[in-house]
Amino acid sequence: MTQDFIFGKNSVLEALSSDREINKILISKSLHNDVKLSKIKELAKSKGVIYQFVAKEKFQPYAEFNHQGVIAMISPIKYGDLDEFLQKPHTNSTLVILDGVEDSHNLGSIIRTCVCAGVSAIIIPSRRNVLVNPIVEKTSAGAINHIEIIKVNSLVNAVQKLKNSDWWIIATDASAKDNYYNIDYCNMNSAIIMGAEHAGVSKSLLKLSDFVVKIPMMTDFNSLNVSNALSAIIFEVVRQKLNNIKK
Amino acid sequence: MTQDFIFGKNSVLEALSSDREINKILISKSLHNDVKLSKIKELAKSKGVIYQFVAKEKFQPYAEFNHQGVIAMISPIKYGDLDEFLQKPHTNSTLVILDGVEDSHNLGSIIRTCVCAGVSAIIIPSRRNVLVNPIVEKTSAGAINHIEIIKVNSLVNAVQKLKNSDWWIIATDASAKDNYYNIDYCNMNSAIIMGAEHAGVSKSLLKLSDFVVKIPMMTDFNSLNVSNALSAIIFEVVRQKLNNIKK
Repeated sequence: MTQDFIFGKNSVLEALSSDREINKILISKSLHNDVKLSKIKELAKSKGVIYQFVAKEKFQPYAEFNHQGVIAMISPIKYGDLDEFLQKPHTNSTLVILDGVEDSHNLGSIIRTCVCAGVSAIIIPSRRNVLVNPIVEKTSAGAINHIEIIKVNSLVNAVQKLKNSDWWIIATDASAKDNYYNIDYCNMNSAIIMGAEHAGVSKSLLKLSDFVVKIPMMTDFNSLNVSNALSAIIFEVVRQKLNNIKK
Repeated sequence: MTQDFIFGKNSVLEALSSDREINKILISKSLHNDVKLSKIKELAKSKGVIYQFVAKEKFQPYAEFNHQGVIAMISPIKYGDLDEFLQKPHTNSTLVILDGVEDSHNLGSIIRTCVCAGVSAIIIPSRRNVLVNPIVEKTSAGAINHIEIIKVNSLVNAVQKLKNSDWWIIATDASAKDNYYNIDYCNMNSAIIMGAEHAGVSKSLLKLSDFVVKIPMMTDFNSLNVSNALSAIIFEVVRQKLNNIKK
């Protein structure tokens, strides 16, 4: 596993100036501003890296390191770029958008499933969603090296770009009328949005979606794990595509 | 969460004499046989509870308890009985058989998925498969209370009984020719066997199966998590059944 954090003002500044992929930067709330910290925030902003001011307690796991109140969480992979992705040709491709998946094991399983099912890319937001970390890497069983994972600062902007580039947006929602298998996935580029386990897909994204679908439940117990929900949908896409080839 | 173990010869003897559901009994290898230990082994055998002789190190997590070298792992649920299950009427029902699922989180997710998909029961073997423990209970998000989980000492015997009772056996295997969605799940009682993540379904069960199916992979990366694999299959069953009702 890759080392997953860099500590201390100088090292974090250096990481920001290099091409290291940083998930986020934690800054201690009790830290006084100085030239280096200002430079860190400035560089982070210009590179689209988020930084959070957190309580001292958050630094306890790193007590043995001379972190000076600044830690950068490093990604084990390079994230892809949405604009570059959209410039490539896509025909009847499928991609998956995650809106609020917080559990590392779930993200790891989702990446595995997506690679097996031939999904073109996974889009995750830089906030309110787990990013690729060493646990995700491990749970993915190596799959993270076989798919493009695109990190964006705004899912709403990303979905708008997709719509402008001839992608159809399919959101999942427990209260939808249509079932996921009634969509024809064979004749369009489709982006499937999976929501947080409790809150579901956010309203702003539901509004932008071309289709909203549900997974029908056979009992009153309506609580499917997000990676299992995605698996049901994504292999229906595979089924349709393989049946379509046969025709 | 239920307390998950009982320690000491007297307490374990008492648990065996009561209707507490015991997953298995751990006995220290260095323990000398005596009347109570003999009685424990005798009672365990008569109740179909497995016991294992393990190295002293296995007892380290329980060091603070006066365990006397004997610990019974308690199940948070009462397991169902296959014979009783088979005596009830079943029409186009589906059940799931797990052959070597070792991860508690996977079993928890599988139970959730099965409840959502209306699966009638889950059959697990008492050896070489994780049993229902507090982690499974937690990961299942309460689903363990909504489905019958049947524990058997021999999956081969269980599958034979199912076949004799008009159930059709469908095993999953990566090298199968048929895809899982080419089976008609609407006109039979079907039992779907999912294997261990690495070893797959054991040969003795493959031989007894009426169908062997695979999940087609869209890339060379062939490593789907077992709970995600089951989800793909079980919601295809749901899709077929709901489409069948509409007809």
